[in-house]
Parts: sequence; structure tokens; C-alpha cells
Amino acid sequence: MTNAPAYAVLSDRFARAAKLAATRNLLFWDSQTGMPKAAAASRGEQSAALQEACHDLIVAPDAPDLLSRAEHSASGLSPAEAANLAEMRRIHRNRAAVPAALDAEKARLSATLLPAWVAAKEQSDFALFAPGFVEMLAINRQIAAARADALGHDPYGAMVEENDPGITTALIDPIFHDLAASLPALLQAAIERQAGWPAPVPLDGDFSAPRQQALAERLAATVGLGPDICRIDQAPHPFALIGTPGDARFTTAFDPDNPCFNSDSVLHEAGHALYEQGLPRDLAFNPAGVARGLTVHESQSLTIEMLIGRSREWLSWLAPAMRDAFGGSAAAWAPENLVNIQRRVGVSDIRIEADELSYPLHVILRYRIERALLSGDLAVADLPGAWNDLSEQLLGRRPPNDARGCLQDIHWAIGHLGYFPNYALGLCLAAQLFERAQADDPAILPSLAQGDFAPYRAWVHPRVHQRASLLPFADLVMEATGAALSADALKRHLAGRYLAEAGPGAG
Amino acid sequence: MTNAPAYAVLSDRFARAAKLAATRNLLFWDSQTGMPKAAAASRGEQSAALQEACHDLIVAPDAPDLLSRAEHSASGLSPAEAANLAEMRRIHRNRAAVPAALDAEKARLSATLLPAWVAAKEQSDFALFAPGFVEMLAINRQIAAARADALGHDPYGAMVEENDPGITTALIDPIFHDLAASLPALLQAAIERQAGWPAPVPLDGDFSAPRQQALAERLAATVGLGPDICRIDQAPHPFALIGTPGDARFTTAFDPDNPCFNSDSVLHEAGHALYEQGLPRDLAFNPAGVARGLTVHESQSLTIEMLIGRSREWLSWLAPAMRDAFGGSAAAWAPENLVNIQRRVGVSDIRIEADELSYPLHVILRYRIERALLSGDLAVADLPGAWNDLSEQLLGRRPPNDARGCLQDIHWAIGHLGYFPNYALGLCLAAQLFERAQADDPAILPSLAQGDFAPYRAWVHPRVHQRASLLPFADLVMEATGAALSADALKRHLAGRYLAEAGPGAG
Repeated sequence: MTNAPAYAVLSDRFARAAKLAATRNLLFWDSQTGMPKAAAASRGEQSAALQEACHDLIVAPDAPDLLSRAEHSASGLSPAEAANLAEMRRIHRNRAAVPAALDAEKARLSATLLPAWVAAKEQSDFALFAPGFVEMLAINRQIAAARADALGHDPYGAMVEENDPGITTALIDPIFHDLAASLPALLQAAIERQAGWPAPVPLDGDFSAPRQQALAERLAATVGLGPDICRIDQAPHPFALIGTPGDARFTTAFDPDNPCFNSDSVLHEAGHALYEQGLPRDLAFNPAGVARGLTVHESQSLTIEMLIGRSREWLSWLAPAMRDAFGGSAAAWAPENLVNIQRRVGVSDIRIEADELSYPLHVILRYRIERALLSGDLAVADLPGAWNDLSEQLLGRRPPNDARGCLQDIHWAIGHLGYFPNYALGLCLAAQLFERAQADDPAILPSLAQGDFAPYRAWVHPRVHQRASLLPFADLVMEATGAALSADALKRHLAGRYLAEAGPGAG
Repeated sequence: MTNAPAYAVLSDRFARAAKLAATRNLLFWDSQTGMPKAAAASRGEQSAALQEACHDLIVAPDAPDLLSRAEHSASGLSPAEAANLAEMRRIHRNRAAVPAALDAEKARLSATLLPAWVAAKEQSDFALFAPGFVEMLAINRQIAAARADALGHDPYGAMVEENDPGITTALIDPIFHDLAASLPALLQAAIERQAGWPAPVPLDGDFSAPRQQALAERLAATVGLGPDICRIDQAPHPFALIGTPGDARFTTAFDPDNPCFNSDSVLHEAGHALYEQGLPRDLAFNPAGVARGLTVHESQSLTIEMLIGRSREWLSWLAPAMRDAFGGSAAAWAPENLVNIQRRVGVSDIRIEADELSYPLHVILRYRIERALLSGDLAVADLPGAWNDLSEQLLGRRPPNDARGCLQDIHWAIGHLGYFPNYALGLCLAAQLFERAQADDPAILPSLAQGDFAPYRAWVHPRVHQRASLLPFADLVMEATGAALSADALKRHLAGRYLAEAGPGAG
């Protein structure tokens, strides 16, 4: 038998699996937007059937043989095909690493732990969560061990690899060490500085849903996602649909008291969606044609939400746009008043409400706890205390209760261990990319003051979006920025914006 | 090897296939409601991947062996399991009957014939449609021959069997002969009678979308589909989601000039949805737990839209409900004025706008043409003339052009031959079921005058919905009504409503 058929057979199977996986994402979108409540049980079964169908395509009994044969004569493949084949091998290795029984047990535990977490968080009672989490942790240790064995990583790194290939503990540790050593002092200095700022004028206007929806659509179109490719719905937690070329839909939420929650969410999700839609169309549903991983994805959302979103240039465009949307007073919607509101740091115990300066510290807290839990150095019973101590050490805040402390995130309740690092690494990468983008094209920031994203898109599209998974993470970062990923650009950015730049003026 | 595993393996596979098929229906729903236009190509690929995954589960290489083994010791199975196994055999026989290459060729032809049909209909130019339809017909002849061979039917009946098991040409022919012999005269008599009715008062009020949406939701809840299980969206052609227990969503359309289009559509689709949601939950995603076929499905929608929907009792509840929704004058929304509007017959060339008296004749026209096309007795070039002649003969109307004649329906453009009969058979069955329901429970009609569907639901639920596919079509009809399917009840109903019952009074 020849190589061409082996590659062709694999190529067809992985493309089908990608289409099924994208469909599963649409089922989730539907479940979070308009699905009738009574459909929940059916939806769970449909989603599981799709996952099983994907799994069967990827770890078919003849897959190892097909992969070996395709690799044996890979010299006949184009560069894109070779990248596809490398990704197929990686995906297969990941899927095959964990016995199906362990995955099924984890899914079963999630189904009971999730409602326990909801109750525990509502009542701020860690004891309701702890027993199930002990079991979840035990399963995750077994999964991590199996993955470590198959992939040649340490157990924690083997968990990270699943959704963020190229991210290892060897990459994470020095960056997080660097951030933990420098950001707490920077944060305290910024807080002291901001204590001298004038009190912001409260935002005012009509924050009803139709007006928030209209603003959301205007912002998406401004970023580059018009109504032909995008739709925006309300959901409890904002997220973007992943994996369907031509479908840039995402969700947001309307806080009737804080219109910036919506505008921030839209910028964040539009960043994810712009990446998805900027992937090479000729590699649609190909293994090398998808996003490179969680860290790169988060860099794309955080560049727009944080790097661009808190810039004076963008806020000078956004403030009148929001006044157009909501009405309200000139004083509230003065650009410098929005600077005063949007640049406040260190004001929350909650990660998803955190500013760009505190955010990496929230993540590092979770990373340290996760590693200690997985290694066994930290017992579940000692988790709340460890969390609160670390919070005080890193953020200078002690949460008032566990609901606003170690119970705030859903991740552990659904068995996501090793997921958090991408949030902070993504911010480091966002800073590194955006610093380079501005150096390459000084028109990017001034254009944002006109609501013009074209120069930014022109920079990022060929260097990140079009690179898809055609090369490893480290190579993508090196080619786009000329350096390996580090905390340097982020530290420069934060020091510049929060210590050097002038505070809010009169408007 | 034992029987139990063979049945269990098949059972798991068919359940997975049913979940994937239901997911494919959701993808279609999404494509017709809010999907961004730019996603069309991706959606087509995702839908095809789901279809392929279903196909692979059902016609796996070992399926014939598993089916034989399971059947060999079926004595150990419960009645529901035995019904499942019988359906598995039937589904497998149907799927395996047609070579994959023929199905693929038909799908390929559909993709080009559909836009050709759209253009031909827009320009009312049959010549734009004919060449592609010649090819489509040739493929359908081959598919019909293959199906006839595998299933032991005549070719046309073999096409019908795919989606409407138990419906044969031996069943269709005498019923359609009977209807064709009696309805044309009945139609002309009703038209003459209605010429003497007073002109209806035009419906008035505010027919804007939010008011139409509110009415739609009130009607659905009245039928028995509250917001926990139902959602209603706008789409070009109304349809109900099929195959997901707990998800009774359907679509409607808002005609700003004719609010009855929406109310009729909602009643029709709510009938489909009520059937789907009334299927036995303990057999969810089981082959014997699904709807019995197209004819039974259509009987459920037409009972509510036509039999109930044009009754004086229901219209006496609906008229004030519509006035509540839209405002407007007392004269327009007098129940007898709605009787005057909703009972007019013979006023359109278009099947989907047809009244319950003309409707079967529209269907019989298509049936005769399809059979002649498939057998080769009618050439494609002669189709428009044959259509117009038959229309005159059956309906007493000659369409002004082909757009309102032989080009009006989408079915042939997407390769659906043998699909139309269920529309007329469904109406016969609706009349037969509803006649029996009223005899069994005289409270059904009076309750509808109070907007109370509970007595109707209580009758139909155990006799139709809960019977699912647990027994063959003919047995279901016999058990529910005490007779085989015929045109008798429909003829009695139509003569009673359109010739015997009093015309619209003063209101």
C-alpha cells in the first residue's frame, strides 16, 4: 500500500472529526442561549454522542498503522500536509493516552460535582464541595499520570498540553516566577497612585437591553465582524463559538448597572472570533488549520479587551460611541472619565472582574494551588486556607468568604485542572505581540482613536491568524515577535500604563 | 456468542445514530433562523459529516451479522425491544438498499438543481429547471429500482417507504381514486354556496412582529407547549424540530397583511411538536420510540390546523384571543367573521395556501405526475402541460404560469419523489382520528371553545403519541380508530362542514 491513501484516509477522518467537534460547540452555544430548559437531558446525550463519534474517528483501531505509514513517506507531502500529519499524530497521542474508562469516570464525577459546587458557592460552604472534589482530584491524578506516561511530560504539564500544545511547566515556571516577583509591588504602587485620582463620575443613560445589543453589534462591526458573519446573543457567561469558518457568533451579558461589562465582553469575544475567522480558509477543518491553542487564543481576546481596550486612543473613540448608544451626560461620557473607570486596579477578589494588572496574579494563585493539589503537597481540606494566604501575599487582599475565594471558578468542578495558566500566558503574549505591532506600524494606535481596526488586523492577520497550527507555539511567537515568550513586554506595558502615564485629566 | 450482546451493540449504535440525526435537524433549524449567512458552506459540511457518521453506525460491515444473531434469539426480548429490533432491520434494509455512489450523486445534483429551481420559479421559466430535472429523475429511477429490488415493492412505493413505512401504492391508489372521484364536485358545490356569503370584514389591528410573536407563544401554550419546552422563531418556511425529547421548538412566519398565516402555521407546527413530545420518554432515541412516519405526523399537525382550527368552537375562542393580541375592531374579530375568512375554499393555485377541501386534490395532482414521470410515461418536457390539464380537471383552475403551477414546490428540486402522498393521507387520517375522538369524548369540541386542549390531548396521547413506532402503521390506525385508513371520514367531515353546516352568521 502507498502513503498517499494512508494520508488521505487520515485526512478525511480528522476533517470529519473537526466538523463534529464544531457541531458540538454549536450545541453548547444553543444550550446557553435559547434552548428550552426541558431539553437539557437530551442535549447532554446528543453532545456525548458527538464526542463519541469524534473519538471513534480519531482512535480507530487502524489509526496507529495509518499514521506510521503516512509518516514513513511524508517526503511527498506539501508543507501544509506535513503540518496536518504532525497535528494528527499529536491529537492521536493525546486522545489515546487516557483509557476511556477514566474519561468516562471523570465525566460522571463532573455531573455530580458541578451541582455540588453551585450549592457550595451559593452558600459559601466549602464542605459541600470538598468530598466530591477529593474524588475528582484522584481521577485527575490518574489521568495526569497516564498522560505524562504517554506524552513524556511531568503530570501537570501533561494536563496543560491537552488544550495548549507547546506550553510546558518549563515555560510557565520562570514567567510566573518573574510576574510574582514584580507585579505585587507594581500593583500596590498603582493602587496608591490611584487613591489620589478624582472620584469618577457615575456612568449614566438608558442601559436597557435593546441599546446594549445595538452597542454590542456596533462594537463587533468596528472590530471587523459585520452581521453577515456575526450574531450576538445573551448568555450567563460570555464565550465565542469555536471551529466554524464563517460563523463568528459569540455571547455577551447585559449588566443594567454597568454597561462596561458588555463592552468589555464584546471586545474580548470579538478577539477570539476574529482569530477563528482569520484562520486560513483553504485549511478549514484541517488539523493544522485550527487555532494554535488556548494561550494564543487568549492573547487575541486580551489584546483587544485589555491592550487596546484600556488605551486612551480607543477610549477616546469608545466614550462618544457609548454615549450615542445610551444617552447620558457629557461629564459621565468624557473619555478621561472612562479612563478613570476602566483603569482602576486591585478592586476585586474575583478573577473574571480583575484588571489587567491584577489578573496574572489571580492566575498564579490558582497555578500554585493546582500544582500542589495534583502533587499531593496540598490536601483538599487545607485548600481554603492556602488560597486566602496566597491571595493576601500576591494581591494584598483576603477574600471575605470562600464564595469569593476558592469557590469562585467553575473549572475544578468540571475537572479542568491545568487550564488556568493560559489566561496569564495569553496576557504576556498579548503584550509581546502588541508591543511589536506598534513598533512595526506606528499608525495602529492613532487609527483606533478613529475606530479603525484595519491597521491592527493587517498586522496580526498574517503573523498569527493565518499561521493557524502550521508551526509549533514557540516558532509562532518567535516569528511574530522576534523573541521567545516572556513576561518582559507585559511588565513594560503595565509599568508604562499604570505608573508612568498621566492619570485621568479633566476630560 | 449470545444474543444479548448483539442486541445491545445494535441498540447502542442506533441510539447514537438517532442522537446524531436529531443534531443534524438542529443544525438545519439554526441555518433557517439565526445562522450568519457566511456560515452556509461550513454548515453544509457539518451536516454532511453528521449524515456520514449516522450512515456508518447503521450500515457497519458487521451489522447484517449482528441483526441475524439478534433475530435468531429474539424470544428473550421484551415487546419494546422486539419492536426496536424490527425497526433496526427495517432501517438497515432501507439504508443498505441504495449504493452510496447513487446517494452521493443525488446530493450533488440537488446542490445544482436547487438554485436552478429558484431561478426558474422567479422567472417562471420551466426551461431553466428541465435539463437538471431530467438528470435528477434518471438518478431517482435508479434509486427507486435499487430500493424496489431490496424491499420488494414497486419502484414508486419503494420511494414512499423510506420516510413513511407501511404506506404502499396499494394503500394510496384506492384512497386517492375515491377522493379524486368525489372531492372535485364537492369543491365546486362549496364554491357556489360560498358565493352567496357576505363579503368578510377585513381583519384589522397592529400586526407588528412583537404582537405576532406574543400570539404565537400564547397559541403554543394553549395547545400544550409552554415556554419551558418550546421556543418559536421566524423562518421563511414554518417547520418543527424533530427528534429531541424536551425540545419542542418550531418556526413560523409573520405576514404583516395576514395574521392568520401565523396562527395557522403555529397550530400546524404545534401539532407536529405535540406528537414529538408525546412520544414515550423511556424509549427516547430508540428506533421504536420515534414517530411512526410522515402520514401519522401530518395527521397530528392537520388535526389541529384544519379539523380543530376551522371548527366554530375553536374559532369562537381564537377570535377574541387574536383581538387581544392585535387590537382592531369588534366587527373584524367577530367569530363568525373569522369563520367567513378561514372557511373559504378553492381560492388559490398554491398547495401550501390551500384549504382543507382543495388540499387533497393538489396532492393527487402531484402524485399522478410523479408516478408518470418515474415510470417514464410522462416526459419532463410535457410536465407543464400535464400539470395544467390535471389542475383544471381536479381543481377547476388553470395556473396562470408555471411559477404558480409545476414550479411551485421545492420537493423535486431536492430529489424528493414519493414524498407528497403523506400530505393527503395525513388529512384522511386526521379526519378519521378526530371523528373517533369526538365519538369517544363529546367534551373535546366544547372544551376547545374554552381554549382547553386537555380532553383532545388525553384522547390522542395514549392512542397515537405513546404508540410511537411500537407497531406497524396499519395496526396503529386500526387500534386507534377501529378501521383501516380510508377517505370515508374525510369525505363525511368535508361534506358536513362545507355543505351541511350553516354559513357564517352575523357574528
